[in-house]
Amino acid sequence: MVQLGLVGLGKMGFNMRERLRAAGHEVVGYDRNPDVSDSTSLEDMVSQLSGPRIVWIMVPAGEPTRQTVTELGQLLSEGDLVIDGGNSKFTDDKLNADLLASHGVGYLDCGVSGGVWGKDNGYGLMVGGAASDVQRAMPIFDALRPEGPREEGFSHAGSVGAGHYAKMIHNGIEYGIMQAYAEGFELLEAAKIVDDVPAVIKGWQRGTVVRSWLLDLLVRALDEDPELDDLEGYVEDSGEGRWTLEEAVNNAVPAPVLSAALFARFSSRQKDSAAMRAVAALRNQFGGHAVKKAGS
Amino acid sequence: MVQLGLVGLGKMGFNMRERLRAAGHEVVGYDRNPDVSDSTSLEDMVSQLSGPRIVWIMVPAGEPTRQTVTELGQLLSEGDLVIDGGNSKFTDDKLNADLLASHGVGYLDCGVSGGVWGKDNGYGLMVGGAASDVQRAMPIFDALRPEGPREEGFSHAGSVGAGHYAKMIHNGIEYGIMQAYAEGFELLEAAKIVDDVPAVIKGWQRGTVVRSWLLDLLVRALDEDPELDDLEGYVEDSGEGRWTLEEAVNNAVPAPVLSAALFARFSSRQKDSAAMRAVAALRNQFGGHAVKKAGS
Amino acid sequence: MVQLGLVGLGKMGFNMRERLRAAGHEVVGYDRNPDVSDSTSLEDMVSQLSGPRIVWIMVPAGEPTRQTVTELGQLLSEGDLVIDGGNSKFTDDKLNADLLASHGVGYLDCGVSGGVWGKDNGYGLMVGGAASDVQRAMPIFDALRPEGPREEGFSHAGSVGAGHYAKMIHNGIEYGIMQAYAEGFELLEAAKIVDDVPAVIKGWQRGTVVRSWLLDLLVRALDEDPELDDLEGYVEDSGEGRWTLEEAVNNAVPAPVLSAALFARFSSRQKDSAAMRAVAALRNQFGGHAVKKAGS
Amino acid sequence: MVQLGLVGLGKMGFNMRERLRAAGHEVVGYDRNPDVSDSTSLEDMVSQLSGPRIVWIMVPAGEPTRQTVTELGQLLSEGDLVIDGGNSKFTDDKLNADLLASHGVGYLDCGVSGGVWGKDNGYGLMVGGAASDVQRAMPIFDALRPEGPREEGFSHAGSVGAGHYAKMIHNGIEYGIMQAYAEGFELLEAAKIVDDVPAVIKGWQRGTVVRSWLLDLLVRALDEDPELDDLEGYVEDSGEGRWTLEEAVNNAVPAPVLSAALFARFSSRQKDSAAMRAVAALRNQFGGHAVKKAGS
Repeated sequence: MVQLGLVGLGKMGFNMRERLRAAGHEVVGYDRNPDVSDSTSLEDMVSQLSGPRIVWIMVPAGEPTRQTVTELGQLLSEGDLVIDGGNSKFTDDKLNADLLASHGVGYLDCGVSGGVWGKDNGYGLMVGGAASDVQRAMPIFDALRPEGPREEGFSHAGSVGAGHYAKMIHNGIEYGIMQAYAEGFELLEAAKIVDDVPAVIKGWQRGTVVRSWLLDLLVRALDEDPELDDLEGYVEDSGEGRWTLEEAVNNAVPAPVLSAALFARFSSRQKDSAAMRAVAALRNQFGGHAVKKAGS
Repeated sequence: MVQLGLVGLGKMGFNMRERLRAAGHEVVGYDRNPDVSDSTSLEDMVSQLSGPRIVWIMVPAGEPTRQTVTELGQLLSEGDLVIDGGNSKFTDDKLNADLLASHGVGYLDCGVSGGVWGKDNGYGLMVGGAASDVQRAMPIFDALRPEGPREEGFSHAGSVGAGHYAKMIHNGIEYGIMQAYAEGFELLEAAKIVDDVPAVIKGWQRGTVVRSWLLDLLVRALDEDPELDDLEGYVEDSGEGRWTLEEAVNNAVPAPVLSAALFARFSSRQKDSAAMRAVAALRNQFGGHAVKKAGS
Repeated sequence: MVQLGLVGLGKMGFNMRERLRAAGHEVVGYDRNPDVSDSTSLEDMVSQLSGPRIVWIMVPAGEPTRQTVTELGQLLSEGDLVIDGGNSKFTDDKLNADLLASHGVGYLDCGVSGGVWGKDNGYGLMVGGAASDVQRAMPIFDALRPEGPREEGFSHAGSVGAGHYAKMIHNGIEYGIMQAYAEGFELLEAAKIVDDVPAVIKGWQRGTVVRSWLLDLLVRALDEDPELDDLEGYVEDSGEGRWTLEEAVNNAVPAPVLSAALFARFSSRQKDSAAMRAVAALRNQFGGHAVKKAGS
Repeated sequence: MVQLGLVGLGKMGFNMRERLRAAGHEVVGYDRNPDVSDSTSLEDMVSQLSGPRIVWIMVPAGEPTRQTVTELGQLLSEGDLVIDGGNSKFTDDKLNADLLASHGVGYLDCGVSGGVWGKDNGYGLMVGGAASDVQRAMPIFDALRPEGPREEGFSHAGSVGAGHYAKMIHNGIEYGIMQAYAEGFELLEAAKIVDDVPAVIKGWQRGTVVRSWLLDLLVRALDEDPELDDLEGYVEDSGEGRWTLEEAVNNAVPAPVLSAALFARFSSRQKDSAAMRAVAALRNQFGGHAVKKAGS
């Protein structure tokens, strides 16, 4: 059994603490929200850990993570280890690792997948960093990952940054898969040739080529709301989808499906599209085509 | 000077009659609307023409055109010639030609481009059919096409159907070009780095690689409405865009730009997208992500 | 236990016969290949069945299926039932059903998914047709579908044609999902930030959001050939992907992901692209950009 | 008449010097290639100019431009003005402007469009920077831009960076338009319904909605090589296309056409696609589909 500091007890961090404790590990959590925190400050959390320490960061990517890493650099000691399990951009990892290395503190980046289901099912983990650090944190990873062969729910993807890189690509793929099901669903709904769309989708869960965990979730959603009309077709995107497309551009890799999925989300959030106003204006100019006037 | 029957005096047909008459040709028009018609019926129109007759059809594609061809088959005589100048699907042309051939009547299909500007600028023409029929109708084509070398505003594209095929592809390209400008416009608007977006677009009219007639029209539209916010981003599509994509599929030709332009129009007409509701539902299922409830 | 005629003993039909027999059903197969056939002709097959008969067709879509239906119409009797389990276009089903109905023979269309794995895992089934016919054939469906709750591997999608419609959409989605993984794989390979790409993908099998049966197959493929360089990036497409896009167009449903996946396959089969020669020619014209000369 | 230093006498800079001199301006050019240079060094060039000086940079974007700006900062004096006419990323402009401002030297960024045709036709110009600097350089801009109303070939797009931003979007649009024509061309070639594809495209030059300068160039290319088979469908991309897509992502603007055009170029340069090998591998796994073995 190991001892772990855990910074950030939101939806993900809170559940991870549960899973880790259920596996018998000792977790000292810190969160700004005192209702969930096991410690009064980062400093207090660190002081409750006996060295060499392992601290897992599970706070929002970007400035919050950067801030936490900086503070931990002050508080931790040579030989300690920090793991960033948030959705950081892979380019941040080198900066974090360098900062901590200047204090003799090790660094791993760990992409974590599985959402709210991870508490019970385990989390898919992709880790970047030195093999010796990975080895040292393995009891933590083993507690967090799903049952079954380790290599089916955990990978050591490469050196620092590779874990978040793998997670970024994972999320890009996730966008594409979700959009593929979504387009199929809309087509089934629109064509009205299939009478019972939810039954068809439920019937895809076994034996078919498209069976997947996301399909199971779609079936759950349709069980609760067969036409999915309790919610709006308004979809946020996280950094990872955007970074995946950036990486496609940087590496000259065609990514038509991943970009289409991202753009569909952008479109879903537009009340009115400037681009389509331009197309309407052009049609109007050359064809005298009827256009919808704003406010009409 | 030649004599022509012209069926359909809507926005296009009406203007074409003007242009033909301005060139000195005799046009007997027929339209169901007596205010614009020169004849009381198709039969009356035909009776006012001396053989061998040429009749130009300018009515909506599909059933209306088919109906007109069928009636003309009854009314015309061996050696007469029918030209379909509407936006018919190229597969209709063979049917029309065969039907008329059974009466000894010739057939040409003619794609007509240029919109409301054609009356003054001339129309771009793409013709399918027998060379002898094309030759016979050339005075008409010469009056309708723009000034300048014939081969820059007119083509004999091939046998029956080839004219409408060329026009279909023309329109597919048109969708793509319009969407390219539109995406650029939206980006300029969104990024707010360029202060005067209409001025930049106006400044693209000369010397640049993207100068075009459609750009000139966009400049006109922006002159009238600098943010294009007098109209909605709601865009219809005509058959040709869809048929172009069908043809891409039939010929295994990748058409990512042309399809993206068509899909952008489909999206522009959706108040809410079933596909994006499915994506939102999936995100909700796995991540407990906040979603917009319908009606909220 | 029921008795079934099975026409077509290729890769799919052969395996289905195995699975049906393993479940205790009696199958009289017919195939043009005498090595696998249980009968010498369609007529012989029909004569070996006692009425009321059920005959399952598992031959290529289009003409071969149409031909088989026509012959069965001659051979079968009132009260018999035909099931088309091939990859027919949903619009063929109405024709087939009408033809058989004129002989008093019933008709079901059944989309079958699962590939070569279906023999052992069971096949995902989507059925169109009358409820009474579905009920009658249920022992067959139950034998073919996977273990587990019937509604998770089988659906009665609607009236005639709905089964193949559901299968068509299934395949469109399948294209999109495969392409999503494929783009992610290429990005991982190209960026060279992840050291062990197969290990990362293997590690996605449990706990992650992207886990699926197709992912399991990708892991299998990478186990056999870690860089997938024993084969060419040349991918065929079947009718269903194309028909899905046709349906998207017909129903004005945006399908950017499904179309991108189809177009990627088209592109994969082109040695040289006429479109890209045109782009190269344009760049050459305006910029004097260096271009690759053919054969250089 | 004004005096101008011009750094970089490649394809673009050389032609611009010609056009400026033809307009009566005095140009002192510098290029590392002594065959075309009017001066032996940047220092020599600067020394030949009487203050307050204007120096136009026309060297490759990125490091070469940055280096030139840095050296000019050393050589120029308070009140001088530098114009970067290259294809720099808009984010470089602020850095360049700040560096020069520390020496009291002004800065304008100018996007230049028109390719090799600019020498005779004039160049489309988009400028970013202070109005007073723009005013001061106007004689240069007027000499470089096309005949006709200034606002149709020149724009002051906004503050520093806006000129290159406008040029970046211009190029993104250019990619989309070129791809639209290219897909149409390939479809016409593939379908073989139009007999004379070059004649049809030539016939689009007048009257049609798709007429443009790029279309005129396509006609020129087809005049020289009717099937465009003297060159390969291998197309480079410049930074601007990539940056446009980056900006679309950064601003959450859907850009399906511009991204499709960029990805088509990426694909055109791949001998074999890792993504499509993955799709082939998946098909092979589930369906036992025939795949092309590498080297076969």
